[in-house]
Amino acid sequence: MAYDHVSASANIFERRESRVRSYCRAFPAVFRSAEGSHLTTEDGRRYIDFLSGCSTLNYGHNHPALKQALIEYITSNGVAHGLDMHTRAKARFLETFEQIILKPRGLDHRAMFTGPTGANAVEAAIKLARKITGRTNVVAFSNGFHGMTLGALALTGNAGKRGGAGVALSGVTHEPYDGYFGDDTDTADQLDQRLSDPSSGIDKPAAFILETVQGEGGLNVASKAWLQRIEQIARKHGALLIVDDIQAGIGRTGGFFSFERAGIRPDIITLAKSLSGMGLPFALTLIRPEFDQWKPGEHNGTFRGNNHAFVTATRALELFWSDDAFETETARKASRLRKVLKQLSDSSSLVLRVKGKGMMSGIEMQSGEIAAEVCKECFRNGLIIETSGSHDEVVKVLAPLTIREEDLDAGLKILADAVRAVTARRLKSAA
Amino acid sequence: MAYDHVSASANIFERRESRVRSYCRAFPAVFRSAEGSHLTTEDGRRYIDFLSGCSTLNYGHNHPALKQALIEYITSNGVAHGLDMHTRAKARFLETFEQIILKPRGLDHRAMFTGPTGANAVEAAIKLARKITGRTNVVAFSNGFHGMTLGALALTGNAGKRGGAGVALSGVTHEPYDGYFGDDTDTADQLDQRLSDPSSGIDKPAAFILETVQGEGGLNVASKAWLQRIEQIARKHGALLIVDDIQAGIGRTGGFFSFERAGIRPDIITLAKSLSGMGLPFALTLIRPEFDQWKPGEHNGTFRGNNHAFVTATRALELFWSDDAFETETARKASRLRKVLKQLSDSSSLVLRVKGKGMMSGIEMQSGEIAAEVCKECFRNGLIIETSGSHDEVVKVLAPLTIREEDLDAGLKILADAVRAVTARRLKSAA
Amino acid sequence: MAYDHVSASANIFERRESRVRSYCRAFPAVFRSAEGSHLTTEDGRRYIDFLSGCSTLNYGHNHPALKQALIEYITSNGVAHGLDMHTRAKARFLETFEQIILKPRGLDHRAMFTGPTGANAVEAAIKLARKITGRTNVVAFSNGFHGMTLGALALTGNAGKRGGAGVALSGVTHEPYDGYFGDDTDTADQLDQRLSDPSSGIDKPAAFILETVQGEGGLNVASKAWLQRIEQIARKHGALLIVDDIQAGIGRTGGFFSFERAGIRPDIITLAKSLSGMGLPFALTLIRPEFDQWKPGEHNGTFRGNNHAFVTATRALELFWSDDAFETETARKASRLRKVLKQLSDSSSLVLRVKGKGMMSGIEMQSGEIAAEVCKECFRNGLIIETSGSHDEVVKVLAPLTIREEDLDAGLKILADAVRAVTARRLKSAA
Amino acid sequence: MAYDHVSASANIFERRESRVRSYCRAFPAVFRSAEGSHLTTEDGRRYIDFLSGCSTLNYGHNHPALKQALIEYITSNGVAHGLDMHTRAKARFLETFEQIILKPRGLDHRAMFTGPTGANAVEAAIKLARKITGRTNVVAFSNGFHGMTLGALALTGNAGKRGGAGVALSGVTHEPYDGYFGDDTDTADQLDQRLSDPSSGIDKPAAFILETVQGEGGLNVASKAWLQRIEQIARKHGALLIVDDIQAGIGRTGGFFSFERAGIRPDIITLAKSLSGMGLPFALTLIRPEFDQWKPGEHNGTFRGNNHAFVTATRALELFWSDDAFETETARKASRLRKVLKQLSDSSSLVLRVKGKGMMSGIEMQSGEIAAEVCKECFRNGLIIETSGSHDEVVKVLAPLTIREEDLDAGLKILADAVRAVTARRLKSAA
Repeated sequence: MAYDHVSASANIFERRESRVRSYCRAFPAVFRSAEGSHLTTEDGRRYIDFLSGCSTLNYGHNHPALKQALIEYITSNGVAHGLDMHTRAKARFLETFEQIILKPRGLDHRAMFTGPTGANAVEAAIKLARKITGRTNVVAFSNGFHGMTLGALALTGNAGKRGGAGVALSGVTHEPYDGYFGDDTDTADQLDQRLSDPSSGIDKPAAFILETVQGEGGLNVASKAWLQRIEQIARKHGALLIVDDIQAGIGRTGGFFSFERAGIRPDIITLAKSLSGMGLPFALTLIRPEFDQWKPGEHNGTFRGNNHAFVTATRALELFWSDDAFETETARKASRLRKVLKQLSDSSSLVLRVKGKGMMSGIEMQSGEIAAEVCKECFRNGLIIETSGSHDEVVKVLAPLTIREEDLDAGLKILADAVRAVTARRLKSAA
Repeated sequence: MAYDHVSASANIFERRESRVRSYCRAFPAVFRSAEGSHLTTEDGRRYIDFLSGCSTLNYGHNHPALKQALIEYITSNGVAHGLDMHTRAKARFLETFEQIILKPRGLDHRAMFTGPTGANAVEAAIKLARKITGRTNVVAFSNGFHGMTLGALALTGNAGKRGGAGVALSGVTHEPYDGYFGDDTDTADQLDQRLSDPSSGIDKPAAFILETVQGEGGLNVASKAWLQRIEQIARKHGALLIVDDIQAGIGRTGGFFSFERAGIRPDIITLAKSLSGMGLPFALTLIRPEFDQWKPGEHNGTFRGNNHAFVTATRALELFWSDDAFETETARKASRLRKVLKQLSDSSSLVLRVKGKGMMSGIEMQSGEIAAEVCKECFRNGLIIETSGSHDEVVKVLAPLTIREEDLDAGLKILADAVRAVTARRLKSAA
Repeated sequence: MAYDHVSASANIFERRESRVRSYCRAFPAVFRSAEGSHLTTEDGRRYIDFLSGCSTLNYGHNHPALKQALIEYITSNGVAHGLDMHTRAKARFLETFEQIILKPRGLDHRAMFTGPTGANAVEAAIKLARKITGRTNVVAFSNGFHGMTLGALALTGNAGKRGGAGVALSGVTHEPYDGYFGDDTDTADQLDQRLSDPSSGIDKPAAFILETVQGEGGLNVASKAWLQRIEQIARKHGALLIVDDIQAGIGRTGGFFSFERAGIRPDIITLAKSLSGMGLPFALTLIRPEFDQWKPGEHNGTFRGNNHAFVTATRALELFWSDDAFETETARKASRLRKVLKQLSDSSSLVLRVKGKGMMSGIEMQSGEIAAEVCKECFRNGLIIETSGSHDEVVKVLAPLTIREEDLDAGLKILADAVRAVTARRLKSAA
Repeated sequence: MAYDHVSASANIFERRESRVRSYCRAFPAVFRSAEGSHLTTEDGRRYIDFLSGCSTLNYGHNHPALKQALIEYITSNGVAHGLDMHTRAKARFLETFEQIILKPRGLDHRAMFTGPTGANAVEAAIKLARKITGRTNVVAFSNGFHGMTLGALALTGNAGKRGGAGVALSGVTHEPYDGYFGDDTDTADQLDQRLSDPSSGIDKPAAFILETVQGEGGLNVASKAWLQRIEQIARKHGALLIVDDIQAGIGRTGGFFSFERAGIRPDIITLAKSLSGMGLPFALTLIRPEFDQWKPGEHNGTFRGNNHAFVTATRALELFWSDDAFETETARKASRLRKVLKQLSDSSSLVLRVKGKGMMSGIEMQSGEIAAEVCKECFRNGLIIETSGSHDEVVKVLAPLTIREEDLDAGLKILADAVRAVTARRLKSAA
């Protein structure tokens, strides 16, 4: 029985929660509390978290400083909801974001607080790009993932997800990502050639949208050169460059923005997931001032600008991004993680490829089935970890960036043991 | 200067927040705290809130019991974010919702926690209806509003909003709402005739989606008879009935669900806004069990099921919906509100129409310009209030349902004075 | 066996012609020759033609004068195909059309020769309307039929036909035609109200497209008042008025253009079917000069402007439209036809409604099944006649306008006998 | 003045023909008659025709045998128009097509007579493919051209043409044609890789549609290997293979079907242009029997199956395709044509590339402007010839296949002289 670790109260989920629920199926337990890199179930079992809400909890669960800031705000009757009216909490967030994030990076983007999900931030981004350019087409990339509302869904590479739309999803051209046809084919050059030819069949795009490292798509990494080339091509053809930094940003792959390593300057940037720092719903679309051509209220919504999230996000920026310490520490952990994955890959009798970048790395198994078996084995041994990729074949490590070294090691040991156990089992049954 | 009441820190908004911001333009102040029916600015000014986050704060700002529950949860390291994994907070919400809301109303819907905005709940609803029926078309109604992501936007009556999409919005037929052509024309009968005719040009719909009282559309009210007829017609033509109860539900127009007065049983119900009770982002799509045909993970997202919101929503259900007291009290206030609006209408030398239902009522001015002037005058005198309607011509009163009687009276007095002042000014300048 | 009257060579059709073939199923015979109002089969059977190629043969089959003109042209090596280069034949057609058709009616439209089918003419018309207005939406009407290519198909009322598209058909709003909701409801007024309301859900249209009498839709007739009102509404809302006169025009319902009776002046008119006069493929989109905003070659095609058709069409215009004689004669026959249909209707024990206008009239049976039975009985007795309508319930009489009186009478007698026989049979089996 | 060679009657075109007219602008003359490879103007000037109605007149103008057959048919009152009823002319065409074309090539396709234009044949083809597969997406190729009605237009590579649609054109993926990225990149392999990856972003296609030699696209030739690979890939992914043989077929590039050289067997084939043999409007969609899944009348139209064209097409098949003589003769002429073009290319001081295949060859100039100048110079000297390609940079020779050798030589001399003259002028002005 799948639910053998689930307490009695789990019945309510069977009875009342829609069948659409998913992660709870892979991790059949009811969680009560969470702290740092650990989740604890109703019946007291403790799990190391290598999922981190799919990179939503880069600073871990319930960071004490963020908790404290939020409790203080609530206690003082800070405005919780005020549509998009000005609040002190919003002012403080904007000031902090400007000082700590934008200025040091030479950016002057404006902040648009969309409905508090990544998909909403993406919908706003492409709507704006279409409005500014008067064009319809948006170029998205193979294995890209940008959300489930219809506008964002149209950008998503996965056919199954797109197929769920139930209506025609138009206005998007899906192009091969960096390295898609192997190292010898420059997909950026091919794209440029097609966009330069009035008879190629591709409509001039309003925008390119991309992730610098593809989370759901299997931890594919765009090279610095490719990102720079894509920026050039976008400019050349009058298209805006949108970086969807929802999963790869906020320190996950290095700098606050994942694209810093390439030295590019996107016209629009989408952020969500780890932005609030505490897992609260919050999303942000950053827009270069010259493209901030919205009319007031042209794209609205009830939960734009979550004030609780302003408070925790502000605190998180102060704590983690005022200097280089956090980034340096993260790089150190990432290096450790990559080393262990490399060893695991090298020591395996099967070809296992290390994928990803920084603390957004993982290991590609022979199939989605095997990868799922590894994750299941991990969960049995106290580790929460998941897969991604076209065929769910990549086991991805998304530990909190704040994870203590011993927890990282403990988690990696569980993972390595699981990979070995599953591999051995497979080889045996194949023999 | 529009921003004369805005403190120094307001500059940050000019500098860093996108021009898309809107409510802050109508209410030029920076708010610091909020409690019950009042908002307080940085410089200590206190406003009565007749906007309530567009019906997101039916229980007022920072209700003490909800605050307490949330603070306790945070303090105990309750899971803040866990994707859609099982948590104790979710279990308690589901159990409470089942016991207090569903069972007494003879409903057995399943709960789908979508991304925490109304638009996300609506996107899930129509995606599911299309999947179940294998049809594409969705019938929406004139003046309906259902959100800004592309799928929801296609359902929205307002041409300006739809026009912002930048891509073709297909798969929706917009039909006249109840009373659209006056009392003598039954728009439901017309719809039935068209759907019964294979050559009418309307594709068989996957669903009808409607609000029982239209919030953004100008406080139009669907009659009990019309709602029942629409339910019949939907069944007859194999379409699902979706009630978007995001603004009109959760006590705003009477019962917990706005459609209870009509005795209908929608196949899908969307909730958001006041569901968390404290203004936290939270959305819910309720689905009759036979239509809960999702595959696991078929519609996903990062912020599905906000655990903080589970906690406050659960407490709110216990507090306000365990017995009839709250509903009775709301009805009493609504009656008072309607009476004052009626008097205002009767006493005016101009024809002013009272619109809406229950605590979702308002007064229709001669034009959007006049209505805006009324709201501006109100704000000057300490009242936050807004407009709606095709031409923004309806001043709508969306006070917290928990508002104290003296605050309701005080707010209504400011409104009445403003209507009189603006009317007098207009008559004078016309003379 | 359905094919009992078909000669041996019919096997080739079973073997080699696609199953999509249709009229040949209702009229199982192989036709050899045709003259005036008669078709003759391989085995010498002679049929009266009350179908006339669905109004493509208003001057009958192989009119001697048209034949002669065409043979002379071919004999003299007249250009048969020249893309859209200037030819003497085209010049003569344009001059004749200008002198005989446009000038006397005070029209100054320009002629666009599209691909030689009605659907192509309609595609050009709506493409141009969208280009001129910069709008996408086109208002079409219930039971309208405009062709089967994707652009034209989107305008068609019939759900089955539209459903065959295999892709989303967007950009069209289908509105109720004149009389759709009975005599008490003015569908033009309703349309005006919806278009005047920015929140009705209807996008501002590029054009209205309509037939003044609906051929495929069941011989529904738009009143003079409604047509005038629709013209006003189109102008008021900045939309072009397109009259699709492919079936109802060229004398079928009275004047050369079917809309002459209403005194309106469409911005764009589409013609095809009887335009060549001899059944040759030929189509024409007429455009008011101020809207002739095409760029050279912007809408092209190989068979634009069929030179053989220019020759026969020119001769037909000279023969039939130089004075009033033909129109007067047609009116006389129409009056006779209507009288017989009226008598048939009056004398029937069942309610049979006479529908249509002029020589485009018919009789509505109780069901499509009964109407089909009537047509089958007619064919057995030497008459070719077909049905139309939402449920194929209307038996429509589309005799050549040039039919001799005795042939008209003979055909009507066969029809009347068939109606009586089928009705009697039905009543008997019901008893 | 552009119209200096135009007779007085040309004014009628300025006055009454839509500005969309195009070829008449490049060839400002009014043509009176045509015979074989020559066109004669009103004022007696005679032109060699290297345009042939864009490959519509492969047997030349007014071939005596075809004329005779048609005149006999008309004289005998053969049915000119009969919707899609069986006629003797249609039976004879089908029998002849089966005996002379299908059987010898081992094909057993069924014939669907669509509206008599290539676009209509293409619309039917993709509609059927979508119906059969239940899929929406169709893969078309860069520089492909398939017609101007909305369904066909969506398949067209040229952005300007597609942009004229005025509505979203969805349901098509445009992929690079053979050789698009140069000789080292196999575009078929890339396509296969993308279609094999569920996250590439390309929806599984209903069909691939292609021309084996691209007429409007600039005389690009697909290799035998590429065509075979594309057939394999289509089969592998459950897509139908549609060859649009409207311009390249009927002998223009070799065999009756252009794809015979590759030994492939398309599921659907579209024919039009030269099919009637005399330039009469006529189109045909050939369907493998197992895919002939139409319901009767599911795709209809008034002018399906032009009986006059049946007569001339039958005669043309008998005359030219009963044995190998015509094909051999055409190959001889093609060889001569290619040789002259090669010499022209070799002797030029500028790089001029010979493009195309067989009697569908041409020469690529440095720019569209230069190519246009060459054509203009040719016309001045008695030759009608046109351009094609992304930038209209290819001067294409589409002489009748029946052209006499001395006329071919005379035309090629005019062309060579013009190329040399224009090139010299350019070099001079550049010096």
